[in-house]
Amino acid sequence: MADRSMIRVDVLAKALGKAKYTEDLKFANMLYLKVVRSPHPHARIVRIDKEKALAIDGVVAVFTAEDIPGLACQSKERPILAPDVVRYVGDGVALIAAETKEAARQGAEAVQVEYELLEAVFDPEEVLQPGAPLIHGDTNLAVQSKVEKGNVEAGFQEADFILEREYTTHRVEHAPIEPEVAIAVPTFEGITVYCPTNSPFQVRQIVAETMAMPQSQIRLIQPTVGGSFGSKCYDSGVLASRAALAAKLTGRPCKIVYSREESILESTKRHPYKMKYKVGAKKSGELTAMEIKIIADSGAYKSKSPFVISRSAIEATGPYVVPNVRTEATCVYTNNVTSCAMRGFGSPQVAYASELLMDELAGELGIDPLHFRRINGLKENSLSATGQKMVNVSLDECLDRLEQSIEWSKRKAALKQAKTGRIVRGLGLACMYRGESFGSAGQGSDYAAATIQVQRDGSITLYSSMSEVGQGGHTMLAKVVCEILGVKPSRIFISPVDTYYVPDSGSTVATRGTYVIGNAIKAAAEEVKGKFAAIAAEELGVRAEELIFRDEQIFWKDDPKKSISFADLAAKCYLKSKSPYGYGWWSPPGGYWDREKGQGEAYSSYVYGACGAEVQVDLDTGKVEVTRLVAVHDVGNALNEEEVKGQIFGGVSMGLGYALMEDIVVKEGVIQTVNFDEYLLPTSLDIHEIIPELVERPSIYGPLGAKGLGEPVTSAVAPAILNAIADALGTRIYDLPANLEAVLAKVQASKALGQGGCCNG
Amino acid sequence: MADRSMIRVDVLAKALGKAKYTEDLKFANMLYLKVVRSPHPHARIVRIDKEKALAIDGVVAVFTAEDIPGLACQSKERPILAPDVVRYVGDGVALIAAETKEAARQGAEAVQVEYELLEAVFDPEEVLQPGAPLIHGDTNLAVQSKVEKGNVEAGFQEADFILEREYTTHRVEHAPIEPEVAIAVPTFEGITVYCPTNSPFQVRQIVAETMAMPQSQIRLIQPTVGGSFGSKCYDSGVLASRAALAAKLTGRPCKIVYSREESILESTKRHPYKMKYKVGAKKSGELTAMEIKIIADSGAYKSKSPFVISRSAIEATGPYVVPNVRTEATCVYTNNVTSCAMRGFGSPQVAYASELLMDELAGELGIDPLHFRRINGLKENSLSATGQKMVNVSLDECLDRLEQSIEWSKRKAALKQAKTGRIVRGLGLACMYRGESFGSAGQGSDYAAATIQVQRDGSITLYSSMSEVGQGGHTMLAKVVCEILGVKPSRIFISPVDTYYVPDSGSTVATRGTYVIGNAIKAAAEEVKGKFAAIAAEELGVRAEELIFRDEQIFWKDDPKKSISFADLAAKCYLKSKSPYGYGWWSPPGGYWDREKGQGEAYSSYVYGACGAEVQVDLDTGKVEVTRLVAVHDVGNALNEEEVKGQIFGGVSMGLGYALMEDIVVKEGVIQTVNFDEYLLPTSLDIHEIIPELVERPSIYGPLGAKGLGEPVTSAVAPAILNAIADALGTRIYDLPANLEAVLAKVQASKALGQGGCCNG
Repeated sequence: MADRSMIRVDVLAKALGKAKYTEDLKFANMLYLKVVRSPHPHARIVRIDKEKALAIDGVVAVFTAEDIPGLACQSKERPILAPDVVRYVGDGVALIAAETKEAARQGAEAVQVEYELLEAVFDPEEVLQPGAPLIHGDTNLAVQSKVEKGNVEAGFQEADFILEREYTTHRVEHAPIEPEVAIAVPTFEGITVYCPTNSPFQVRQIVAETMAMPQSQIRLIQPTVGGSFGSKCYDSGVLASRAALAAKLTGRPCKIVYSREESILESTKRHPYKMKYKVGAKKSGELTAMEIKIIADSGAYKSKSPFVISRSAIEATGPYVVPNVRTEATCVYTNNVTSCAMRGFGSPQVAYASELLMDELAGELGIDPLHFRRINGLKENSLSATGQKMVNVSLDECLDRLEQSIEWSKRKAALKQAKTGRIVRGLGLACMYRGESFGSAGQGSDYAAATIQVQRDGSITLYSSMSEVGQGGHTMLAKVVCEILGVKPSRIFISPVDTYYVPDSGSTVATRGTYVIGNAIKAAAEEVKGKFAAIAAEELGVRAEELIFRDEQIFWKDDPKKSISFADLAAKCYLKSKSPYGYGWWSPPGGYWDREKGQGEAYSSYVYGACGAEVQVDLDTGKVEVTRLVAVHDVGNALNEEEVKGQIFGGVSMGLGYALMEDIVVKEGVIQTVNFDEYLLPTSLDIHEIIPELVERPSIYGPLGAKGLGEPVTSAVAPAILNAIADALGTRIYDLPANLEAVLAKVQASKALGQGGCCNG
Repeated sequence: MADRSMIRVDVLAKALGKAKYTEDLKFANMLYLKVVRSPHPHARIVRIDKEKALAIDGVVAVFTAEDIPGLACQSKERPILAPDVVRYVGDGVALIAAETKEAARQGAEAVQVEYELLEAVFDPEEVLQPGAPLIHGDTNLAVQSKVEKGNVEAGFQEADFILEREYTTHRVEHAPIEPEVAIAVPTFEGITVYCPTNSPFQVRQIVAETMAMPQSQIRLIQPTVGGSFGSKCYDSGVLASRAALAAKLTGRPCKIVYSREESILESTKRHPYKMKYKVGAKKSGELTAMEIKIIADSGAYKSKSPFVISRSAIEATGPYVVPNVRTEATCVYTNNVTSCAMRGFGSPQVAYASELLMDELAGELGIDPLHFRRINGLKENSLSATGQKMVNVSLDECLDRLEQSIEWSKRKAALKQAKTGRIVRGLGLACMYRGESFGSAGQGSDYAAATIQVQRDGSITLYSSMSEVGQGGHTMLAKVVCEILGVKPSRIFISPVDTYYVPDSGSTVATRGTYVIGNAIKAAAEEVKGKFAAIAAEELGVRAEELIFRDEQIFWKDDPKKSISFADLAAKCYLKSKSPYGYGWWSPPGGYWDREKGQGEAYSSYVYGACGAEVQVDLDTGKVEVTRLVAVHDVGNALNEEEVKGQIFGGVSMGLGYALMEDIVVKEGVIQTVNFDEYLLPTSLDIHEIIPELVERPSIYGPLGAKGLGEPVTSAVAPAILNAIADALGTRIYDLPANLEAVLAKVQASKALGQGGCCNG
């Protein structure tokens, strides 16, 4: 294990309570900000009266959209402050700057906003109907992605059996421990913003555009981040811009920090989906066609919907060979809270639907569900739904490992027999695949820069804008460099993210941390290695390409005594006035992409996984316990084994929350679950045995063969659990979450109809 | 003029008082430090009693060398705190940390140090005598450099005339407006030090070695610097280390700031020299041989003496063709205050001696001194004293310009006639040359890294560790990038120096700012240009090498309408996921160097200049006014003409102070001139007409043909003024400074002897 794992570079400061989060920072003369929010889901702002607010002792200023020097909002994005129309309950209309938090709060309450109410729409299936109110003036269609492969009608004709099902997934919260926060400090040259984010350069850009200033004059410093899970992107941009606006206009440091209630009110959620699936199969189990229609709710603004929707369309069939596919994924605006990318964005929803569908289809055809996935699963050189020839496919290995680890047949049989009394048990599985990074359909640039400096004393500094959001990304960077340069982790120091200085590595999202940023740091490390090898070769009188970097030494392959220590080599490098820098730039290989038909090389690299869950269901309470969960993931090369397992534990817990309890309930645009007493996150009492199983088929492109993992883990958990519940109950829940009420309702409906195993107990 | 000059990037903040100097920074819970110093020039520390100091209210800690975790002092360098022996009056023995400045001062007075006095030596000519006390235990020889060319004895035999003279130069103060200051803040990862310095990475190294910590964990942030002139290198390292020590051990921010008295007591000075010159010449004026012996006083510690001495040995003959040369430059330890590099380090002393010598020799031979320099001056392909074949030599151009500008013959004649009464007038000149950067004899590495990022919005950020010490270095970097990328200066933003992030550009010393760092940023800009040209070529459908970057546009040479704006191209670069970075690394070309004989390619590039001064001397008071001074310098390419002139005005003023008034008077190791009331700097009343004349013969290696200027300006000023004084008086002063007392003494001695023009008035 020793070599397979390293201690996280960020762990000591966090464990000792020494890490500084943004909320820990104080500046002299600092003001506190509070947002005045719309109580209406859709309304026109008629008048904003600041006077009463300004009369409150301690209130320094009240800002509205009129005060914004640059863009009050990007096109169809959540405004920094709404200039004319509010589109969801929580849209910011004014900003109070005050000497104390309390004065800011009072000021916010005292601002009087006169609204003209507009008709609001909340149901994504209604908004495209003629006559629906147009939320952004032109169309309520946010984005649509399609995949068209083969001839679906012909495919269904070939089928021996056709199944049609509808699924819904719900709105959930990213729920990082640290809520949104930003502090802006005005400087002579520009503005410095302290802000946790997964996208430092994007937040900087939003602030620059809000303030109409050059990006180079906005300095974004990233303190320790208390979790992201895909949030802290545009959300952080809005906060940072509000703080920057107030700081620049008051000339004083300004802090804005949300309570959990404010965070839940404003922060983006996972897109809720309504999905209609139709699938055809032969008796043998072979799939012949799939037709999929998805409607996703973007909420009031666009956010990352294009990325989410295109991924859903591409991955909608699941990791299966389907000769004929028609997928249409539509994302619309409503007057609900905004949706955005969340861990796995776009994958979990379609993985949920497709894996429930496969399970049910297998059942209908009388084929073991694990075997059924083997029949249809992607193999080497299979064509995906987008017509991409898939290589380096490890789905079968994942299924093999799952079968072994969870003892599929043995437990399946055992649980069937145990199905008596109030507690019923079941076993379920699900597969997943996911393209790494943004891919060809990603509608944006995809790159990372990273830099390495070997210091004169042989210590090594790494520079990137990778956000350490708790995922261990910085440790991954360190590990890649240690492997390539053959040095111990204690040499490595990772400079904190500060956009004044660090190279732009893009955002830490989209399963691109290890894949793209890891590759950039690898390129940088290899450049250093090449430079150092040349110097060592000269010193040792051997050929550079015959040198081995290992255990802090650089030595000749044919005689390890011909060696020089890494530290000595670093000193030599400076002495000889040679460059001790490595500059890495990496962009995933692009591919052909037909946006119209959704055909082509969707992603340059895919990861695979399989998840098995054993559940017990309390028929009296509806409570589901996931007693054992095996999560198999092909990680390519487990750069840090303990870290990889940690990712799996975390991702499974999040998937379990998605499956069984978490739910942002919205009524007429108003969120009902405004804090963690009502929005239920899984606790340690909800988590039982989780068995991580690592498959390591080296990635073709990933750094040292590694593959991304943070997002993939979550995808297959909910369908595996739901399939296990179906196995336990003998009847199936289609709509997430399978919370107490949903399970109980299903049990009772099933009893009433006299169906299913749960009633025969 | 418009295009020839640009507004300095740092000027607005400074002019508006918005620039933050280290002294302006405050941190919560900050302690103040005070150094307990040795009152003895040489003594052994027997005992340090902290008790009385610790009893003082507000004194938090008293540190001594024992508390230093790493190196208390580098080999033969000034200690952070002296571990056993003190070697000059001012050596630090203890450090008080207190809640207030006043408590720190009281604490420092209360520390009781018992010393055992050791024999001290102050005269550099005595310290190498047998029996002299050994200041560092082994030898008092700090460093020796030699140049041996041809056969000096034979050369003197060829001569028709031989002249032998002795010269002394004195100890002067760098005297930046901002005295030494440092603030250290302990962090979880290491220590952050705020400190003005010309050598950020070197100061970081000293702190790291003092604290026994990896360099990567010491963060040195450079606030605005209030002048350097070669100081703020090791001096800053000592202060930064003291602050870091106290900060780490108390766990609190610690500030150390010197009063002017402390600064003059501790800061390094220009090396005082004693020089013996012997020169042989033919009647025609042609030089046949020179023999030079230099003794320099390093003071108590080594500092940059090796660099200073080797340069002096190389440049000792002045920019003249001398077939036979023997130079021996010896630098010794004494118990005086430490000497170090100061603007021009090593050049001004030998320029002073050699130019006085040439003047006097010309006089003895009856040759016009300007013509005499033409006869002997280096020409294209001349061999220098080190046997280097000199190329790109512009000395004659400088002399031509000087002759014209100062109207040499006309003024010479006019002044001769005006030589009556109490006020006498004279005209003098001097030449100079100087190798740029460290050179082959530089005994160290010589490189610079610099980085450029073009931001998504087309703003451009430059990264380097170049210290903007007031010389306009940052503006030079901006100008180079603007020239290469064809963009306006407002696009450029220069990230402040912070060793956590910026690339290591080496120190801003040794006429290497423009030459070496300028070349690194040029390399970076050219990399960006190449990358951008490739993208533009693809966009415009032309060949990249046919594109012109000018006026914010990139256009095809054959049809300027085929163009794309720089801003659009930046956006395109990101959209295409192409790298917007340029990484520059530059190291001057090396050359053969025989350290033993001081023969070879001493420097890869030289600059040339000539200076003419018109003086009037008040025979009653000894007061010299430099009524008109022409400073001709070959700057290669005046990247920023106003800036170049500014450098000349400043450098001439410094040279004038060196010539006429500045003087650190030391008696038995005790400095007598402890503040600016006694140490006289020239003021605006002392400065009359200065005429900068720019020769622009493009440098072979310098960025865009530019050459360094900051240091060269000072060298020729003092000899030109002293030669003018000699012309006025008809008798010659050999020892600097030519202050009131020295001039008056010479006048009176001359009168007594009935010599010279001043007596014949």
